[in-house]
Amino acid sequence: MSAAKLIGVGVGPGDPELMTLKALRALGEADVVAHFAKAGHASHSRAIAARHLRAEAVELPLLYPVTTELPACSAGYRSAITAFYDDAAAAIAAHLEAGRVVAVICEGDPLFYGSYMHLHARLAPRFDAEIVAGVTGMSGCWSAAATPMAQGDDVFTVIPATLPEAELTRRLADADAAVVMKIGRHLPKLRRALESSGRLGRAIYVERGTMTDAKLVPLAAKPDDEAPYFAVVLVPGWEQRP
Amino acid sequence: MSAAKLIGVGVGPGDPELMTLKALRALGEADVVAHFAKAGHASHSRAIAARHLRAEAVELPLLYPVTTELPACSAGYRSAITAFYDDAAAAIAAHLEAGRVVAVICEGDPLFYGSYMHLHARLAPRFDAEIVAGVTGMSGCWSAAATPMAQGDDVFTVIPATLPEAELTRRLADADAAVVMKIGRHLPKLRRALESSGRLGRAIYVERGTMTDAKLVPLAAKPDDEAPYFAVVLVPGWEQRP
Repeated sequence: MSAAKLIGVGVGPGDPELMTLKALRALGEADVVAHFAKAGHASHSRAIAARHLRAEAVELPLLYPVTTELPACSAGYRSAITAFYDDAAAAIAAHLEAGRVVAVICEGDPLFYGSYMHLHARLAPRFDAEIVAGVTGMSGCWSAAATPMAQGDDVFTVIPATLPEAELTRRLADADAAVVMKIGRHLPKLRRALESSGRLGRAIYVERGTMTDAKLVPLAAKPDDEAPYFAVVLVPGWEQRP
Repeated sequence: MSAAKLIGVGVGPGDPELMTLKALRALGEADVVAHFAKAGHASHSRAIAARHLRAEAVELPLLYPVTTELPACSAGYRSAITAFYDDAAAAIAAHLEAGRVVAVICEGDPLFYGSYMHLHARLAPRFDAEIVAGVTGMSGCWSAAATPMAQGDDVFTVIPATLPEAELTRRLADADAAVVMKIGRHLPKLRRALESSGRLGRAIYVERGTMTDAKLVPLAAKPDDEAPYFAVVLVPGWEQRP
């Protein structure tokens, strides 16, 4: 029997070829493979890693009870999501206590805005835990756009579009390069903040960055304000480029 | 003969297992493999990718004439480095004009603070250019530290330690999570800025993050101010963690 171990495995931004050799090795040694998904939907991380799952591995789907239906600051959201992470950690702990290797597969990088962190915080104090770094979603997006993002002494910032307009504007103006996440219904506000901060001209809107049906367009040329929650806007830096 | 193509290939932060399947495929199809190194030193990216280089591929070492010997803002540095990138781009262009596939292997991610961007800016307007995203050095570092970096609506910022102390302090205080790069002789100043911004307690000093001889220590516990240029300091976010 292998020694019990929790492994947070980054499987990259979407293109299965952007998985690392280390991620493949982790899937090869895992007795249990856990993956997050919205209830009633297929898991994105599982779809990315599908061809590398061993038939003998036990799969443990972790199904979010809520995602964006409730505000993240509401009491209803917080209690539902806390109970969900507690239960998910308990289910994984049971496997670890039985001496199994549990891989939690994660889109992008496990420790960068990922759900895995909620399990890590609960389980790493009690069990061996290892991280397999992954290519982030934002790297996938700027690579698909083939646009240099940050160079030299650039200050680079990741900003959630959920911030108030004045704060968005201030932070965009204060960064040499930026990635804005969680766009969704915030796109009209973000557009105004980019305009006020003088960044609209170089902003690139990206949807499904490393999928075969990726959509990349200068934001100024996007005719509508429709955007999914997981769209991003890139504001490339390196202003002194040749 | 294959169609000429330039490929910027991220080979990840140091651990050869953090190369992606896509990087391996690019090395399999490349006629020419170019890699940067300091003159008189071995190339880091070549060392990472060494076991995947085909014997038939032509290697093209690109040797920096200067690195940190001169200030990056000095006229001497700028003219030497501009001539170097012009010559490197010309050498690659000659291979592309002969119909070859040229892979430029890059530590980390090609479009995130990487030298490849200087070649991309010169060559992408004239030739087919493709990017293979890579695991960044900073992902490698926080994964080695197994420390959650950013979550939810955290603002995450990458800051060069070269900034003046007041500016460093302001930016550290303004970010929920941060990575400070280019430490070297700036460590005493950075330490003061972390203290003033209330971030010293959670700062983690990382040297050679994904190498077998990695050194990770809470910065407050590091007894000296010796640091190489490529050391980083992580300031993890997610303050509301359970």
